[in-house]
Amino acid sequence: MRDLFKRLASWLLVAASLSPLAGFAIEHPGLLLTRDGVESIRANLGKAPLFDDSLRSAREDVDQEIALGIDVPVPQDFSGGYTHERHKRNFFVAQKAALLYQILDEPRYGNYVRDMLLEYAALYPTLPLHPKERSYARGRLFWQCLNDANWLLYMAQAYDAVYEFLSVEDRELLERDLFRPFADFISLDNPQFYNRVHNHSAWGSAAVGMIGVVMGDEVLIDRALYGFEASVDVNARDNDGGLISTDGQGRGFLANLDAPFSPDGYYTEGPYYQRYAMYPFLAFSIAMENAYPDKLVLQQKDTVLVKATYALLNLADSQGEFFPINDAQKGMSIINSSLVTAVDAAYLYGEQDPALLSVASEQGQVALDQSGMAVALAIEEGHAKPFLKRSVILRDGPRGEQGGIAVLRDPDAGLETVFKFSAHGLSHGHFDKLAIAVHDAGREVLQDYGLVRFVNIEQKGGGNYLPENKSWAKQTVAANTLVVDGQTQFGGEYDASSRNHSDLLFSDIGDDSFQIVSAREENAYAGSVMQRTVAMLRSPQENPVVLDVLRVTSDSPRTYDLPFHYLGQVIHTNFSFTQDNELRVLGDGHGYEHLWREAVGEDIGTSATFTWLDVGRFNTITTATQNDDRLFLARLGANDPDFNLRRDPTLIVHRESDGPTVFASTIQSHGGYDPVSESAVDVPGDVDRVEVLLSTQAYEAVGIHWHGGERSLLIVAHREVSAGQNHKLGIGGREYHWTGPFHWVPLL
Amino acid sequence: MRDLFKRLASWLLVAASLSPLAGFAIEHPGLLLTRDGVESIRANLGKAPLFDDSLRSAREDVDQEIALGIDVPVPQDFSGGYTHERHKRNFFVAQKAALLYQILDEPRYGNYVRDMLLEYAALYPTLPLHPKERSYARGRLFWQCLNDANWLLYMAQAYDAVYEFLSVEDRELLERDLFRPFADFISLDNPQFYNRVHNHSAWGSAAVGMIGVVMGDEVLIDRALYGFEASVDVNARDNDGGLISTDGQGRGFLANLDAPFSPDGYYTEGPYYQRYAMYPFLAFSIAMENAYPDKLVLQQKDTVLVKATYALLNLADSQGEFFPINDAQKGMSIINSSLVTAVDAAYLYGEQDPALLSVASEQGQVALDQSGMAVALAIEEGHAKPFLKRSVILRDGPRGEQGGIAVLRDPDAGLETVFKFSAHGLSHGHFDKLAIAVHDAGREVLQDYGLVRFVNIEQKGGGNYLPENKSWAKQTVAANTLVVDGQTQFGGEYDASSRNHSDLLFSDIGDDSFQIVSAREENAYAGSVMQRTVAMLRSPQENPVVLDVLRVTSDSPRTYDLPFHYLGQVIHTNFSFTQDNELRVLGDGHGYEHLWREAVGEDIGTSATFTWLDVGRFNTITTATQNDDRLFLARLGANDPDFNLRRDPTLIVHRESDGPTVFASTIQSHGGYDPVSESAVDVPGDVDRVEVLLSTQAYEAVGIHWHGGERSLLIVAHREVSAGQNHKLGIGGREYHWTGPFHWVPLL
Repeated sequence: MRDLFKRLASWLLVAASLSPLAGFAIEHPGLLLTRDGVESIRANLGKAPLFDDSLRSAREDVDQEIALGIDVPVPQDFSGGYTHERHKRNFFVAQKAALLYQILDEPRYGNYVRDMLLEYAALYPTLPLHPKERSYARGRLFWQCLNDANWLLYMAQAYDAVYEFLSVEDRELLERDLFRPFADFISLDNPQFYNRVHNHSAWGSAAVGMIGVVMGDEVLIDRALYGFEASVDVNARDNDGGLISTDGQGRGFLANLDAPFSPDGYYTEGPYYQRYAMYPFLAFSIAMENAYPDKLVLQQKDTVLVKATYALLNLADSQGEFFPINDAQKGMSIINSSLVTAVDAAYLYGEQDPALLSVASEQGQVALDQSGMAVALAIEEGHAKPFLKRSVILRDGPRGEQGGIAVLRDPDAGLETVFKFSAHGLSHGHFDKLAIAVHDAGREVLQDYGLVRFVNIEQKGGGNYLPENKSWAKQTVAANTLVVDGQTQFGGEYDASSRNHSDLLFSDIGDDSFQIVSAREENAYAGSVMQRTVAMLRSPQENPVVLDVLRVTSDSPRTYDLPFHYLGQVIHTNFSFTQDNELRVLGDGHGYEHLWREAVGEDIGTSATFTWLDVGRFNTITTATQNDDRLFLARLGANDPDFNLRRDPTLIVHRESDGPTVFASTIQSHGGYDPVSESAVDVPGDVDRVEVLLSTQAYEAVGIHWHGGERSLLIVAHREVSAGQNHKLGIGGREYHWTGPFHWVPLL
Repeated sequence: MRDLFKRLASWLLVAASLSPLAGFAIEHPGLLLTRDGVESIRANLGKAPLFDDSLRSAREDVDQEIALGIDVPVPQDFSGGYTHERHKRNFFVAQKAALLYQILDEPRYGNYVRDMLLEYAALYPTLPLHPKERSYARGRLFWQCLNDANWLLYMAQAYDAVYEFLSVEDRELLERDLFRPFADFISLDNPQFYNRVHNHSAWGSAAVGMIGVVMGDEVLIDRALYGFEASVDVNARDNDGGLISTDGQGRGFLANLDAPFSPDGYYTEGPYYQRYAMYPFLAFSIAMENAYPDKLVLQQKDTVLVKATYALLNLADSQGEFFPINDAQKGMSIINSSLVTAVDAAYLYGEQDPALLSVASEQGQVALDQSGMAVALAIEEGHAKPFLKRSVILRDGPRGEQGGIAVLRDPDAGLETVFKFSAHGLSHGHFDKLAIAVHDAGREVLQDYGLVRFVNIEQKGGGNYLPENKSWAKQTVAANTLVVDGQTQFGGEYDASSRNHSDLLFSDIGDDSFQIVSAREENAYAGSVMQRTVAMLRSPQENPVVLDVLRVTSDSPRTYDLPFHYLGQVIHTNFSFTQDNELRVLGDGHGYEHLWREAVGEDIGTSATFTWLDVGRFNTITTATQNDDRLFLARLGANDPDFNLRRDPTLIVHRESDGPTVFASTIQSHGGYDPVSESAVDVPGDVDRVEVLLSTQAYEAVGIHWHGGERSLLIVAHREVSAGQNHKLGIGGREYHWTGPFHWVPLL
């Protein structure tokens, strides 16, 4: 039966390649859902439960809206407000209703879409710019062009699917009063929005391209693919502080496809925005594949969109939630509808990977087009295989030359470590080079704060980014990475950070019992070079442990802060601390102004242990310390007049150093607490102490002393990191010989 | 088939009643598991999956321990430490192994129990008092006699089940060197532990009684039932500050069964300790029912233990977790093993209520005795019916004369309000008369803090109560109830609080769409009388809303604080507030020293709205205010040197008043936020504002203005609260006539 689906898939592809050539009107429907696709779907209804369920669910949704009646209100609100949410819901529902019209051949769905579009055609010519003035590119239906582009991309599909249902007069009216002026407005009238390399422009160009395909308008398709000539103020910025100017990266859909995606499919803004951008990228690429296959849009950059789908799936934790890299709202996950389209498309237009079928099953729905039917049929036939998430290193940059992101995963436990050594990530990037985050079975052990925004909650600043996103979330101290002299990396300057990236030094993720990644950052702080090495290893008790070794060399005495953003209740420390009687902020600016200093640990000794309990699991940081180190227990929430920040805690290792210094720490999640049986299991964890045995310009050596008395050793090379390089090094009277950039001795 | 089980059950009861009379040795086994029970179990193995699963699970557990080998270490640790946990595990495992021996008739289980008991018999005579000196009644195996009693109660069952397996010599040795001195130690040597009315003494007397039954020792059984003569220092207190002296309430098991249980089965310490005490109460009562049915122990107080099981199930939230009334660790739930025994016993020895079967299914296990088999067979035969939790009012006090607890439940939504107007609750009581707590589908909307203790986590103060339990958790400001002049109720004096209780004024919980309970407290603050009326009603949109009206009358000007202990992130307020630049504590003593003042709202207007988001749900307090009121946003964590407290937030309405004043508020959980679709539903909720329309010595009238423009009205009488009383009252030019203590007008 597998072959049958391959045949189905290739037949669909062949059918698509028979579509008319550019310059001619396409068959309708002809975007994501094609006329041939409709036939194959109708032939298979009742045979693929996941498709049937998705169809039923869409039908219930649309029928409910039809019963409520159409409302096309005069625009007024920010996101979260009524008019915003109504227009947003309209384009989702119209697209669904139009697909239902095609699949079910029931005229009432066609009528609903026609009536709604005609109402828009009556309203649109009367609209000035949206009354909310916050955006650098105000829309007409919405407060920002971005949402207008969302509307057009969905409505293009709705129009395509009811095209044949409409009278010629209605079509002429819609194209004249609505679609053409709409497409021109978000492009020609808003070059600062349209001509960038940014997810905004991906949406804009895809939307213009989609409606261009429907209308058979080569001018619009050309404008979609390549942008248009327009002068842009090179210093202009968007609302997030991102530069408008694309700085020679080109413009239009193809440039947007090229620049932000790395050859590995990593999208430089991070998975939260990648998820958002995947839909327009895929929608227009597939539409072009179906309508103008000779343009080879889907095949661009070695079919990077299929790779990008895998990259996204790999950038989700064990529960399917995306790691909140850069600006990212937590909780966004692979069940998002944009991922449904991506997974189904990657299946049909990719290699029909059976592992994608298990992801689709987890999503619980499929797209209402031929890709969704192909996936649902294959699942029903039992072809699904597990999607196994392993450790992965994804390069960043258009050519993979701008560092990257590593995810180390313990295959048996749910422990995952994200290590970021990427480019800045455009306007949604954070100043957190060499940051780590640790997750355990979907729980955050060391968190990345994410963004400071309540997306679509109008009561919180119109649902938009809040001031603390810039003053806290983007700052270096908000991340689990080193802060030098209390300053944010690159002085918090977007331009400087955007010109630089960290570099991968070496990695070895092939052995489940010991995985290692090492990266270097030379530009974040003038005069300082940082190398961070992150390993996931096994204790003698076979429990996974993260070893984190950060070495910094500076050209003058510096003050260093290494925050560990834990979550939960303090259970045990091996040092004493003094609570402050009045709480003051930890510092001025660079995010420190948001941290209340709750307590200070002093006289730390040579290894500090910090154990906390969170959601039934114990976690311990054990870090090699120097006697003058101070440990700050701090909590977020200062200078937060509108209570926009969570009151999350952090532990900061504070060190003043004249010379090179090493922060070596283990992080472990262990044991657990059950409030029903009231039993506590393995509160201490496996690590007794961590010790820096040696630190030179060429090597560092870190020892782990386990509670059972065993010792392990990691040696990392700084200078000679090639795989074939032989090394020898004496430590404590013993000589070690090895080949390659690191040497791990599990039991000394 | 139902009849078959009734027959089985009554046959078992009849069989039990044929057991030997007092003064003769009983058949073995003869406690919870009887010889006849063993036969019926063996006959039904393989027929009742839930029993078979429970048996398999017990077998896996015990086999694993047998493989590990027996360890009976010299006592050394607090709870959470190795020796404590090992001895605790030993008695659990030995009891299970002995039951397995009976059910499976495999000698290796008998050998295991024998060998372990002989090791204890060798160790016990050598033991001094436990080296940890914290307890008012130190044990020998454990740091407190309470745990020694736990050990004896389980080991008595283990001994009973292997009694026939042991040689006469072994039995003599065990009784001489272990069981008799053990029973004497926890009773005769520790009257301050044994002769009280307290859960400690329930355990103590039940344990002594159980071993007495096994050994056929009437002296011990008598001592168990009635205690023994001993002089007690009337001022002596336990480690929680509770008085040792029982003050005429009697002593021994029967007194413990009488005094703390109300006729409704409410246990005055609250459900957390009731759950803990249920096991010894049931175990010894059932043992007596089986061995000495003429003593009618199980039938005491109208079979209160069966009522108590229902009370416990009704004091759990919609997810089965107990409301944390008084000292209570959150997360304890009806799946606790103690509740398994209780539910199975209440089924077999009660009325064979099919609703209990669905609870047993939810628990996922049954007791390894005839009650467990009866339940499992009945479930397998399909007799289970849903256990519907409705609103309930449980009286407190031995005769139901000391106030009580109400739980108002909306039957369609998951909203539940707990209202406490009970007695103090012995040494585990809190000073929180008239407190409320609100839960929504298992989530805390307004929380009761619970206790400050990490039970069995040795690293946190030996797993014992922490100082902040007294300085915070027990204090009035820690609860959702009124604080007068910044003082805790009864000046924080246990004795005074224990002598007093609140009183139920009136209630009507018969109508799902409007339920109401009103209670009065006259003693908590000298010169102040408080009446709180809590209603659960429906908005015009049919959403459940809590209306909370608290009237206080004092003999002089006072300052009032009404805290609302919410959880989550602030989303919207209709008032402005100013954040403090440095955090100071909110006050001195009475719990205020633990609260950081984060911000102050001023110029509040006449109705304050406070909306927060927690775990995907919006919640709003709307409270009628006076213009001089201040609203404190505070956060827990000050004066907490060991970080024992959660950093939870609170909203406090602060009012200075010369005369009587009313705090009228609505609390609603509404709408929700989905981070995957990023959609926010119903952020504002239904309530626009709350207004006190009238407040006299006889009546108060509160209006709710809904967002849709509708208005509702509640009038509450203070003086004439009888059901048949006719009232008339003019408000705003309109006259209202009604009968009974309250008048609810859903739409004015």
